Amino acid sequence: MLEEVKERVCAANLALAREGLAILTWGNASEIDRERGLVVIKPSGVPYDGMKPSDMVVVDLDGKVVEGNYRPSSDTPTHLVLYKAFPSLGGVVHTHSAHATAWAQAGRSIPNIGTTHADTFHDDVPVTGEIPSDRIRDAYEEATGDAVVETIHRLGIDPVATPGALVAHHGPFTWGRDAADAVEHAVILEEVAKIALLSVALNPAIQMNRDLIEKHYSRKHGPKAYYGQKGNSK
Amino acid sequence: MLEEVKERVCAANLALAREGLAILTWGNASEIDRERGLVVIKPSGVPYDGMKPSDMVVVDLDGKVVEGNYRPSSDTPTHLVLYKAFPSLGGVVHTHSAHATAWAQAGRSIPNIGTTHADTFHDDVPVTGEIPSDRIRDAYEEATGDAVVETIHRLGIDPVATPGALVAHHGPFTWGRDAADAVEHAVILEEVAKIALLSVALNPAIQMNRDLIEKHYSRKHGPKAYYGQKGNSK
Amino acid sequence: MLEEVKERVCAANLALAREGLAILTWGNASEIDRERGLVVIKPSGVPYDGMKPSDMVVVDLDGKVVEGNYRPSSDTPTHLVLYKAFPSLGGVVHTHSAHATAWAQAGRSIPNIGTTHADTFHDDVPVTGEIPSDRIRDAYEEATGDAVVETIHRLGIDPVATPGALVAHHGPFTWGRDAADAVEHAVILEEVAKIALLSVALNPAIQMNRDLIEKHYSRKHGPKAYYGQKGNSK
Amino acid sequence: MLEEVKERVCAANLALAREGLAILTWGNASEIDRERGLVVIKPSGVPYDGMKPSDMVVVDLDGKVVEGNYRPSSDTPTHLVLYKAFPSLGGVVHTHSAHATAWAQAGRSIPNIGTTHADTFHDDVPVTGEIPSDRIRDAYEEATGDAVVETIHRLGIDPVATPGALVAHHGPFTWGRDAADAVEHAVILEEVAKIALLSVALNPAIQMNRDLIEKHYSRKHGPKAYYGQKGNSK
Repeated sequence: MLEEVKERVCAANLALAREGLAILTWGNASEIDRERGLVVIKPSGVPYDGMKPSDMVVVDLDGKVVEGNYRPSSDTPTHLVLYKAFPSLGGVVHTHSAHATAWAQAGRSIPNIGTTHADTFHDDVPVTGEIPSDRIRDAYEEATGDAVVETIHRLGIDPVATPGALVAHHGPFTWGRDAADAVEHAVILEEVAKIALLSVALNPAIQMNRDLIEKHYSRKHGPKAYYGQKGNSK
Repeated sequence: MLEEVKERVCAANLALAREGLAILTWGNASEIDRERGLVVIKPSGVPYDGMKPSDMVVVDLDGKVVEGNYRPSSDTPTHLVLYKAFPSLGGVVHTHSAHATAWAQAGRSIPNIGTTHADTFHDDVPVTGEIPSDRIRDAYEEATGDAVVETIHRLGIDPVATPGALVAHHGPFTWGRDAADAVEHAVILEEVAKIALLSVALNPAIQMNRDLIEKHYSRKHGPKAYYGQKGNSK
Repeated sequence: MLEEVKERVCAANLALAREGLAILTWGNASEIDRERGLVVIKPSGVPYDGMKPSDMVVVDLDGKVVEGNYRPSSDTPTHLVLYKAFPSLGGVVHTHSAHATAWAQAGRSIPNIGTTHADTFHDDVPVTGEIPSDRIRDAYEEATGDAVVETIHRLGIDPVATPGALVAHHGPFTWGRDAADAVEHAVILEEVAKIALLSVALNPAIQMNRDLIEKHYSRKHGPKAYYGQKGNSK
Repeated sequence: MLEEVKERVCAANLALAREGLAILTWGNASEIDRERGLVVIKPSGVPYDGMKPSDMVVVDLDGKVVEGNYRPSSDTPTHLVLYKAFPSLGGVVHTHSAHATAWAQAGRSIPNIGTTHADTFHDDVPVTGEIPSDRIRDAYEEATGDAVVETIHRLGIDPVATPGALVAHHGPFTWGRDAADAVEHAVILEEVAKIALLSVALNPAIQMNRDLIEKHYSRKHGPKAYYGQKGNSK
């Protein structure tokens, strides 16, 4: 079942390794079939080298394995929380890419200080607060998803316009229309994180005109977009 | 029409990806045919992978598409402003290469503190001022070009001797005799930006003797050049 | 003798070069056969390019060469001290990987400030104290091993739970079940060292909740591990 | 003439590009035939791609071209000054490798704060003083060599034990028994420069016990060397 989704999810996971976002088994991508309420995700701790579509695991929105020869990624409950909280999400990605993870470990949001950022992320890429110790001990991966959702709601962020967040002390999650789109946002987030880190080393006090942010975001997204070939997408 | 120019412009755009200056679709190169008053530029938002000369777009100096199956790069108006302001330019390149973009985001010019810089850029690589909000909202890409031109005029820079500038909060533009020359300057600018960033981390107060700058620039450029095989070029 | 061990040790040494942890001849991996009390290690100063299993050297726990056409790595006495002090070690690796070496040169332990670290290293990766001058002059490589062992004992660290340490002014040693496992820990240590270096640049005062550390470590290791496919390993 | 030397010098120049020490045409390697008093060096401004042994230029110690179809590297007078000042040199290399150049631009010597450094460079890798303006204007490349020689003499450095130096605002020169040895020292210098830069970011006040420096240097070099397979070399 869901053969095409499995192919896309497998390709997305392999892209994480190829793009340098994940070493060893440190990353996972998933995609949801909204009609059936099923999520296809990478198996836990399986190397990227030799991974194939039939290795993917199908789970329902309660995390019950519906099909697959492996355990699903241990981060599956986090993915499920995000899919349930934000109906517009079609794919989710988690990595430990170095620069985005550094911002997460530092407990700092990635500030929107350049058009490279604003082209894809409308707002600062927010960092969550600390997860309380009782939630760490019990259903921790669900608590990780809750922390992302709580942060996005608290800051009034539109998750479609800012398709990613940092979990404090942990690393980035990104999302998109499908798994491939979530991977692209993970690639961009790492690049944006790197440039921002170099920028604040050169000038810790940078800020950017909000009009410039709106211009760049709306150039690529929304009804008046004029970047790309279709007027409303990339 | 302009088949050879299209081949050169396509090759220049592919070089941006190959040299690590542009990920995804984040860069564009163009070249002008001065006699016909036509510019060949990369299409907007088209991936580098599989791009071919016939995908290039031909526009006139007012930005009107004269030939091509795609929309031209959304940065086309910026390229056109530069071609119109500086008659010596044959090619223009824009990237978001990480280190040059970091200086742009920090709002700092790249200081001429080493012979690696002085061999190619006679002066500091200048950063523009902020683009006013009314210009951001209306004809923004033209305003981006105007900001570069205004900066170069205000500082009394010779754009042939210093073939590049940083747009504040945005990233680098470089130029040259043709598209390939503009790409080479983009490669050098990124390397120079990286070395300068590391240098100011080690010593924030560095300055360089102006005589050393003149020596290195004139060793490679101008009537008494003695670097390379022809006496007056690279 | 020990042909399979030689193959694994040779493969582990080649992996150091392939993973970018060692340039030239700057790294070495070994594995012990506990039953026979013999260690297989890389020959000294031999390039990785063209290295083959039969080039490996077999030494006993006193460092006497039992088989091999080459001298063993000059770091052999350090490996032997570690094998003798910690019976659980099956493989040892030493590199000069850039970021881990930077922490060693700075005389700082790598702080456990992220889940990427806690997934593999239960504690800060400790840095040894200075080796006294009299030990530097005589049996220096043994003194290097003694410094690691003394540091681990002094801090009460479990070497299985924190499979690596930094020798001050020198560089990282890692270990594991076998040579391949020690290499994997060397790869992770370098990545963790890099992310930590970037993190403290962004926020020098970071600390992490101890409960989060325990959660991530125990998710992958120990009786209640649920990461991966077997419940008790990676 | 000197066909074997040309082959070695061509291979050394190609290694600079392959090892990531030189982009475009930014590096040059040479080797001397002491008996004949002739130096073989890279031609000026010729790309590495497609370079062949017959492109190398033969000059005498006064810089007169004895054989070759191209102009010699514009840095030839610097190489010649080094060969004349230090009779033990067989090969010389100049690059603009990023981290070594950053230390040169910062006007700082690379401190000997780790065994990675001490294994190859007995002392700090020294940076020259400023070249006076009158020497910049006239016979500048010779003045560059003079600055290196003056620095090494002033600090009492043995150029065999510390096979490299930084020219202020410019970049590194390394040397060795032959061109390949000089390239290896350029590779090590760049790695050492990178690790030192990261180290001082973590701890600006690092110093290393002089006994540790002597131990590591003498482990690899001199009459009591025991690293490698021959007892007196690498």
